[in-house]
Amino acid sequence: MKKIAVLTSGGDAPGMNAAIRAVVRACVYYNIVPYGVRRGYEGLIHSDIKKLSASSVGDIIHKGGTFLKTARSQEFMTKEGREKAAASLRSLGIEGLVVIGGDGSFRGAERLTEEGIATIGIPGTIDNDLAYTDFTIGFDTAVNTVLQAVTKIRDTSTSHEKTTIIEVMGRYCGDLALYAGIAGGAESIIIPEDPVSTQDVINRLNKGKERGKMHHIIMLAEGSGNASKLQEDLLREAGESSRITVLGFIQRGGDPTSADRILASRLGIEAVELLRREESGLAVGVRHSNVFSMPISEAMKQKKKLDQTLYNMAEILSV
Amino acid sequence: MKKIAVLTSGGDAPGMNAAIRAVVRACVYYNIVPYGVRRGYEGLIHSDIKKLSASSVGDIIHKGGTFLKTARSQEFMTKEGREKAAASLRSLGIEGLVVIGGDGSFRGAERLTEEGIATIGIPGTIDNDLAYTDFTIGFDTAVNTVLQAVTKIRDTSTSHEKTTIIEVMGRYCGDLALYAGIAGGAESIIIPEDPVSTQDVINRLNKGKERGKMHHIIMLAEGSGNASKLQEDLLREAGESSRITVLGFIQRGGDPTSADRILASRLGIEAVELLRREESGLAVGVRHSNVFSMPISEAMKQKKKLDQTLYNMAEILSV
Amino acid sequence: MKKIAVLTSGGDAPGMNAAIRAVVRACVYYNIVPYGVRRGYEGLIHSDIKKLSASSVGDIIHKGGTFLKTARSQEFMTKEGREKAAASLRSLGIEGLVVIGGDGSFRGAERLTEEGIATIGIPGTIDNDLAYTDFTIGFDTAVNTVLQAVTKIRDTSTSHEKTTIIEVMGRYCGDLALYAGIAGGAESIIIPEDPVSTQDVINRLNKGKERGKMHHIIMLAEGSGNASKLQEDLLREAGESSRITVLGFIQRGGDPTSADRILASRLGIEAVELLRREESGLAVGVRHSNVFSMPISEAMKQKKKLDQTLYNMAEILSV
Amino acid sequence: MKKIAVLTSGGDAPGMNAAIRAVVRACVYYNIVPYGVRRGYEGLIHSDIKKLSASSVGDIIHKGGTFLKTARSQEFMTKEGREKAAASLRSLGIEGLVVIGGDGSFRGAERLTEEGIATIGIPGTIDNDLAYTDFTIGFDTAVNTVLQAVTKIRDTSTSHEKTTIIEVMGRYCGDLALYAGIAGGAESIIIPEDPVSTQDVINRLNKGKERGKMHHIIMLAEGSGNASKLQEDLLREAGESSRITVLGFIQRGGDPTSADRILASRLGIEAVELLRREESGLAVGVRHSNVFSMPISEAMKQKKKLDQTLYNMAEILSV
Repeated sequence: MKKIAVLTSGGDAPGMNAAIRAVVRACVYYNIVPYGVRRGYEGLIHSDIKKLSASSVGDIIHKGGTFLKTARSQEFMTKEGREKAAASLRSLGIEGLVVIGGDGSFRGAERLTEEGIATIGIPGTIDNDLAYTDFTIGFDTAVNTVLQAVTKIRDTSTSHEKTTIIEVMGRYCGDLALYAGIAGGAESIIIPEDPVSTQDVINRLNKGKERGKMHHIIMLAEGSGNASKLQEDLLREAGESSRITVLGFIQRGGDPTSADRILASRLGIEAVELLRREESGLAVGVRHSNVFSMPISEAMKQKKKLDQTLYNMAEILSV
Repeated sequence: MKKIAVLTSGGDAPGMNAAIRAVVRACVYYNIVPYGVRRGYEGLIHSDIKKLSASSVGDIIHKGGTFLKTARSQEFMTKEGREKAAASLRSLGIEGLVVIGGDGSFRGAERLTEEGIATIGIPGTIDNDLAYTDFTIGFDTAVNTVLQAVTKIRDTSTSHEKTTIIEVMGRYCGDLALYAGIAGGAESIIIPEDPVSTQDVINRLNKGKERGKMHHIIMLAEGSGNASKLQEDLLREAGESSRITVLGFIQRGGDPTSADRILASRLGIEAVELLRREESGLAVGVRHSNVFSMPISEAMKQKKKLDQTLYNMAEILSV
Repeated sequence: MKKIAVLTSGGDAPGMNAAIRAVVRACVYYNIVPYGVRRGYEGLIHSDIKKLSASSVGDIIHKGGTFLKTARSQEFMTKEGREKAAASLRSLGIEGLVVIGGDGSFRGAERLTEEGIATIGIPGTIDNDLAYTDFTIGFDTAVNTVLQAVTKIRDTSTSHEKTTIIEVMGRYCGDLALYAGIAGGAESIIIPEDPVSTQDVINRLNKGKERGKMHHIIMLAEGSGNASKLQEDLLREAGESSRITVLGFIQRGGDPTSADRILASRLGIEAVELLRREESGLAVGVRHSNVFSMPISEAMKQKKKLDQTLYNMAEILSV
Repeated sequence: MKKIAVLTSGGDAPGMNAAIRAVVRACVYYNIVPYGVRRGYEGLIHSDIKKLSASSVGDIIHKGGTFLKTARSQEFMTKEGREKAAASLRSLGIEGLVVIGGDGSFRGAERLTEEGIATIGIPGTIDNDLAYTDFTIGFDTAVNTVLQAVTKIRDTSTSHEKTTIIEVMGRYCGDLALYAGIAGGAESIIIPEDPVSTQDVINRLNKGKERGKMHHIIMLAEGSGNASKLQEDLLREAGESSRITVLGFIQRGGDPTSADRILASRLGIEAVELLRREESGLAVGVRHSNVFSMPISEAMKQKKKLDQTLYNMAEILSV
């Protein structure tokens, strides 16, 4: 393989730049010419592609976001769109494509193999909602970003002795709430994988009060409810007044952590190694600390399971 | 004066601990016995008061919140409540009280002088809404906290080329939005002091787009609108889709900045100096970098004015 | 087991508080009375031990250092010292002890089993120099702390186009330099496990210059040289003027990262589970993401090996 | 004036980018064409000058360092060098130059006026060693950077109950040590303006110990001694073992604080306003919160005075 392109797609995640850098540097190392596609599949369709070099990716390893930018593409959903995308690559003599993104991006990569392009998917999303890999790029940073917010909120909630509800991202997967809840010392963690009633939450609050706790932190994944609604319910059902914080888009930003930069570097290099070996349609990931790959189609079929051990720990730790 | 008490009241602000520390250490320095009142005026009424020492305030200068805790007190609004509060102090032989808080707290301090207690007010609020002083303790930290959030949001909004609306605190005073807007490089700053129409905002966005800007930051003070409503308006009136972030309580927390710790230290020492000189009913503050004091009654009458020079700068800088 | 004590020993590490908290909360959860020993083995000898409760460890999960304090003890090196230490525990009816620290602390724990105390070791050190476990508590935080420093140094070294030598901790183990070097985008990483000549470093610098790099970062583990000496060598042998930064003790501090808090929580709970099962003389750790335990004696015999894959990555990434 | 150039010179400081941005945006606002000179006076001599636009300075307000880069120039010290520099500007029709830097840079600007170039100096240095202005751009950020380091060092020094000596920048001016010492809660602050003996430091330590302090922070400006030497002296003269940290170049980096960004913005705009009014040879600065300007020659004659009030506060606060 003489030329490889890389793109980022879907929601951005901290560490994507580190992954792009690793792909580009590995290409240079192996005498492959690296190309960058701007704005994801949309840019692929419109041939927004430029040659990169080792220097193009200097001074980006520590930056959040993606310097290649990202977008969602309606046109790529169509067969015509994908044909145009493949044609863009072929016209430049590019045979392989590395796609950094979440499940939507992976499905796109899979379809592109049908157009004769060798593709490899790298998991980049703060949600950690891809079942086949233990971690996705951006997740560790997002958890730490939430923790920094929790530390600030602790200052004011302990001063006022108030209960605070913190709503974090996670539509179907509660990992961000679970990890940040445990590491942030939350009294209650509410995730889509295990719906709880308002009464359960109230029981927890009461238990904490019995042992003298004057403030509580409730970590709520957006997919399992709404902070405002929970606030109202707590007031109505238990006379408990609380404050809410919806963290929003700050969760997507920030300098990537060491773990995300290293994971991104490992997966970026692996993607290039696979393309060099003429592999295609694979998703790279990490399991039990080891880098591995599997067909995207299989990876997409796996069902994300709740880490029950971690979830149980939350109960012990907030005793 | 042999004994002085200190309390924090109303909303907490980063730097309150540094102010408490300065009051306590200045007392010790001048051989006055310092006392700490917990939970503001509520604690005063219920005699939740304890003797402090130089060591009591060790290792707190760098911490957000207030280790004396704060609360709002309905009972203190009544004459009876204030009499009880004054009696609490007198029963311990405490003649002077330093109150750290915002305008509500200052009015309380003023009323307490009527009960024969010498009081001094120190301005502690992230809102910078006290007209008599250039800055309040906590404001500089809050601006920097907002900036850290803006930096994270920039990562993702430049990656997606999206307009972002950031709603910050400030019900009547737009200083937080103004300072953070200028320092954060916002294209539009919307504050209560100068209402703008949605069309004004759209014009700004269009101007930016004309010169090639792909993402905009709109800094909105909560007192001048609502992020969700503006988001809807932009979509309806200009077809502009945007993302919103409501920063919420993280703005109250965080380690105080150098400026807030030093301001707090200066004002805390000044408060004790004034009580030593048998002064009472005064608010301390900073104007043109100098510490000064004036009667609380006069301080409360002053009307906060918009810093027009700064506001105009925003226009030049987002050209 | 009815009563368990916990202590921290040796150099402190971020996450030790989270580990103490997990031990204490797990005890409470299992109806065991938790005790805290202050100042490590020194405190054990002098019976500086107090009963803890779930609340004793509230609001500490996010704090660096160790609230139990730590120290080195000469007296504990003697048989008499250890007998006194064991007697201290016995006099309070404490049968089990959890020791959080590095290899010196672990050897101490092992010797204490000889005095009839059931001990479990939890690895807490920023150096990651314990071979039996993939990670020690504090390492992830230290790497991220170094990265924050690297980001600041990048600002000024890119502005001045200067080479910078950053000396980090790591006397025998280069993991901190290796991880921070890869994640920080260092051009050269110098670790005790693989001594390099000054000429090797110069070759790397020259290679970077050839492709237009205007500034370089050299990450140096303290165990493999001295920043000042390398600075002199580079000047003398290659006419290369550089700047040096010795990070020092800031590497030990800072709020623990999510990964360190969760690792600490998992190991803290596991330690209590083991003592409940009447185990003793074991070290807990994590391997391939799984918590496990093994005899301290065996754990101490393992030789730390360089992660060759990671080390090779550095070469590809700095191509 | 139709064209204005801007350069950064000498040591870099956080906020320089914000100042460049303000100069450029103010030019655009007033229909003046802005130019950027790379690598300070060195780039001026070698005509390393390029036209800038409002977009050239997008997304830089929050970044440390200077995107125009900076350097020291031997050649500019000569009359010939300055003539070449002036010729570079004239050949492009540039009449005015804004110089951002410290005293060396200001002297350069002054000499350049002799070559017929209208120059304005903006104070950019972390040292705050320019007497004519209350604050220089970069100082507030550097103080806060030191404070973050102090917070990390506190974690470990309280855990070990050790005295720590922190050496910060400041060859002739102790402001960085003074502000960071007060805001960081240091027990001793040692600055060039007021030499103290080792015995003075020991007396302070002993006083702290008497009231139960278990750890001390000594803030030392590099211009008033050397951390290693003080460490040895404390050990020899008082048997006090201590740890040292030399913060080094991390003090120059980091995202600029709000105060530095706003100061930079104000001064950058003012510089352009002055050039528009045909002024030259002026230094802009801030005094008692007001922006002002004065001849560079006079500004350079002023002697920096120690803020005695602040210095005295340190004694009260560490009582």
